[in-house]
Amino acid sequence: MINSAYKTLEKHFKRIGALNEVLAILHWDMAVMMPSGAAESRAKNTAEINLMIYEILNDPAIKDLLLEAECTPLSDKLMKANLAEMKRMHVHSTAMDASLVSALTETSASCEMCWREARSENDFSKITKQFEYLLSLVREKAACKSDALNCSPYDALIDEFEPGIKQSEIDILFDDLLEVLPNIYRRALEKQSRNTPPVFPKGPFSIASQRELGVQIMKRLGFDFEHGRLDVSLHPFCGGSPDDLRITTRYCEDDFMQGLMGIMHETGHSLYESNLPEKWRLQPAGKARGMTIHESQSLLVEMQIGRSLEFIKFIAPLLKAAFNGQGSLWEVDNIAALTRRIKPNFIRVDSDEVTYPFHVILRYQLEKDLIKGALSVKDLPSAWNCGIKDYLGKAPPDDRQGCLQDIHWFSGAFGYFPTYTLGALAAAQMVATIRHQNPCLKELISKGDFNPVVEWCARNIHAKASFLSTNDILVEATGHNLETTAFRKHLECRYLA
Amino acid sequence: MINSAYKTLEKHFKRIGALNEVLAILHWDMAVMMPSGAAESRAKNTAEINLMIYEILNDPAIKDLLLEAECTPLSDKLMKANLAEMKRMHVHSTAMDASLVSALTETSASCEMCWREARSENDFSKITKQFEYLLSLVREKAACKSDALNCSPYDALIDEFEPGIKQSEIDILFDDLLEVLPNIYRRALEKQSRNTPPVFPKGPFSIASQRELGVQIMKRLGFDFEHGRLDVSLHPFCGGSPDDLRITTRYCEDDFMQGLMGIMHETGHSLYESNLPEKWRLQPAGKARGMTIHESQSLLVEMQIGRSLEFIKFIAPLLKAAFNGQGSLWEVDNIAALTRRIKPNFIRVDSDEVTYPFHVILRYQLEKDLIKGALSVKDLPSAWNCGIKDYLGKAPPDDRQGCLQDIHWFSGAFGYFPTYTLGALAAAQMVATIRHQNPCLKELISKGDFNPVVEWCARNIHAKASFLSTNDILVEATGHNLETTAFRKHLECRYLA
Repeated sequence: MINSAYKTLEKHFKRIGALNEVLAILHWDMAVMMPSGAAESRAKNTAEINLMIYEILNDPAIKDLLLEAECTPLSDKLMKANLAEMKRMHVHSTAMDASLVSALTETSASCEMCWREARSENDFSKITKQFEYLLSLVREKAACKSDALNCSPYDALIDEFEPGIKQSEIDILFDDLLEVLPNIYRRALEKQSRNTPPVFPKGPFSIASQRELGVQIMKRLGFDFEHGRLDVSLHPFCGGSPDDLRITTRYCEDDFMQGLMGIMHETGHSLYESNLPEKWRLQPAGKARGMTIHESQSLLVEMQIGRSLEFIKFIAPLLKAAFNGQGSLWEVDNIAALTRRIKPNFIRVDSDEVTYPFHVILRYQLEKDLIKGALSVKDLPSAWNCGIKDYLGKAPPDDRQGCLQDIHWFSGAFGYFPTYTLGALAAAQMVATIRHQNPCLKELISKGDFNPVVEWCARNIHAKASFLSTNDILVEATGHNLETTAFRKHLECRYLA
Repeated sequence: MINSAYKTLEKHFKRIGALNEVLAILHWDMAVMMPSGAAESRAKNTAEINLMIYEILNDPAIKDLLLEAECTPLSDKLMKANLAEMKRMHVHSTAMDASLVSALTETSASCEMCWREARSENDFSKITKQFEYLLSLVREKAACKSDALNCSPYDALIDEFEPGIKQSEIDILFDDLLEVLPNIYRRALEKQSRNTPPVFPKGPFSIASQRELGVQIMKRLGFDFEHGRLDVSLHPFCGGSPDDLRITTRYCEDDFMQGLMGIMHETGHSLYESNLPEKWRLQPAGKARGMTIHESQSLLVEMQIGRSLEFIKFIAPLLKAAFNGQGSLWEVDNIAALTRRIKPNFIRVDSDEVTYPFHVILRYQLEKDLIKGALSVKDLPSAWNCGIKDYLGKAPPDDRQGCLQDIHWFSGAFGYFPTYTLGALAAAQMVATIRHQNPCLKELISKGDFNPVVEWCARNIHAKASFLSTNDILVEATGHNLETTAFRKHLECRYLA
């Protein structure tokens, strides 16, 4: 039986899909190409497109079509999943009334601007009032979406980035992690202190050579330059759409690892997008599942592969050749020790993979409390500093290196932080499975052959798009729910063995 | 009295304006940045946005609002002009039924693809059938628009690019030109033959230095890099929007003039856009008037200023310094003779300003006949060759250098060609006025001070946007209707004196 309501919905969501692809190119352009004076008119034009998407979703006709489509059961599993995703998008868009939507848009933008100033002046008091107001709006949003999605307010916020994983599940995972991580961290530091510290080769390292090497690695990973580009931006990101992937990195003349690891991270994101099922391009279920799987793909390439000993064996001679390196600093041992050095850092984005989860878990704990109302904005800096002292042994010297470092909260994004570490757990779980299925994986990677990894991901993760939940994708691919075991073993093996 | 229908229309047209700005950035991206494999998905996304614009204009509510707005007279002149432009856009969009619109879109795209092949294989027969079909659709469009606009079919096509100038007026202007141009051409060639031919300095000339010099000239002309960029593309163009102008050029390592003159031409276009009234940004009357004025601005900078003796005096030492030039080839006389050399060329875009109008007038004559049905597609190549022989003295050796050279017709654009020469006439007329009002203009230009020219254009041309007709803008600015006198005098002065 043909479900004509469903077919009509597909047309509407195809338009939304096209508009979102356009927004993605505009966003890339803004970050990479746009002259600064165009910021205001660009903001207006993207707001207009976002409004058009909002209008499509909030047209009463869509609500009627969704109800009608549900009355006629769909026999096709994929269509069924697509209809569920349509409903989810609809709920997120219609849960709030228009005045709350526009207050949130405006306040997020102004608070973000204010944050830039507060951070650069290292003055939290500059943002307190604005941030309190933004937080009140976010809590209002959470309440509206909690009603509509029938879940807790914080779960409703998580659902924007990572549908299907609840706070109760994250609590268990992060508690598990906190049981083992401090011990791993302590022992890894001890082990590390017994060795002579590695030394970074002296630069400058030409940006052109860094880029060339990055491109070479991207190609080996399967990045298709007929359908994508590599550029430079202040903060590396993967943008564009599956047919037109735009990744960026930033290069440092004294440290070739930064640019290269940025490239590998974003290439991981881009491979996920490029392998999404072509037939479902602009439909909701054809999109990437959520931020946990997305981050798992970037960390799988950057952390699991990129910092493995077998990869270092492959890349060390290439680095030496690219930068005319000479001497023992360019040997595998030194490069490996450099890329795997544990060095607690007050800044999350500069942290190693052992201490990174501490940063995420602290933010997770604090944002839950902020949303619940158990923590007030004025108490945030001290709560932050206590948390960092607990986890890393030392509190940050100022708020710029403390609670003012990340843009997320000050632009209204709550519920995003946990996905960084959930992604790290998922990546470890996937790689454990791939290693188990490919006994000669290490040898292949040491020769620069990443095909078994990339093909496994394409088949078991990317092709699933949003047809399954995050957890079901993991169960089908690895035989397990999302858990901490593989990540723990990975850390023990890499840092304690 | 508040005209609420008009106010509502402003909102709808603001959205169309925003969508058009987005299309402009997507177009720039396509020509300058996009990886080739993204062509198909980009085409779909831009088609979706064009469809959305079409839907807004073809919503019956717009028709009602236009009727209602006309019933309540607007006291404000600018609003009145804006309403008239809204009506014009509405007529152009609604004159054809949806099936003709989609047939035209599809056939234009496929015929353009076919043209690329036919041109590269130098085989007109490859395109005959496709082009006949496209032409039949264009004639159908012309008929529909002729009814809606109450003018001749060819006038309706001109109106898409140059509203307000009729075929009957162009006929008179081009007849005037044909009375004097052959004689000027002959005498200029004679005069030229009496001098030793200039010699182009030997390259290669570094692209980086060419670009640097180009940027320097752009800045002197008032291009604001906070609101624009300079890039490279296969065909130079000026894209983007007034707050975000994206101009491109192409560089030739053996000829620094090509890139530089491309930059000056596109800078002329960009200055027009950037000086349009900010308050009217996204409204129809706030847009550039049409292609005649637009082309006048690019030619004013490239041809009138850029090839004037006073400009050569300014630029010659800069060229010499930029490319470490030595010897007499870098002196004003040689550079001037190079930039002002008359050299009949079968290719329009490579032609000098004396022979260029022949190319345009021939195309104008032929396209009028094609639309009228007085010339058949199969007879086009011979008619073309006869025309070129008449005007330049020699027929092109093949169709690639003949009727297959331009993309316009094969992508469905008829009525565009005359604006190139109408723009040249207008530019000469404007510069004659500016020279008259500024007796020391030559001296200023020879020092690289272009402010009097740029400011005059901003005040007298750019600020008028689409509030007046092309001819009224010219009358207010120069005291004359569009005419050939100034252009003729300009050619006589530059090439015969």
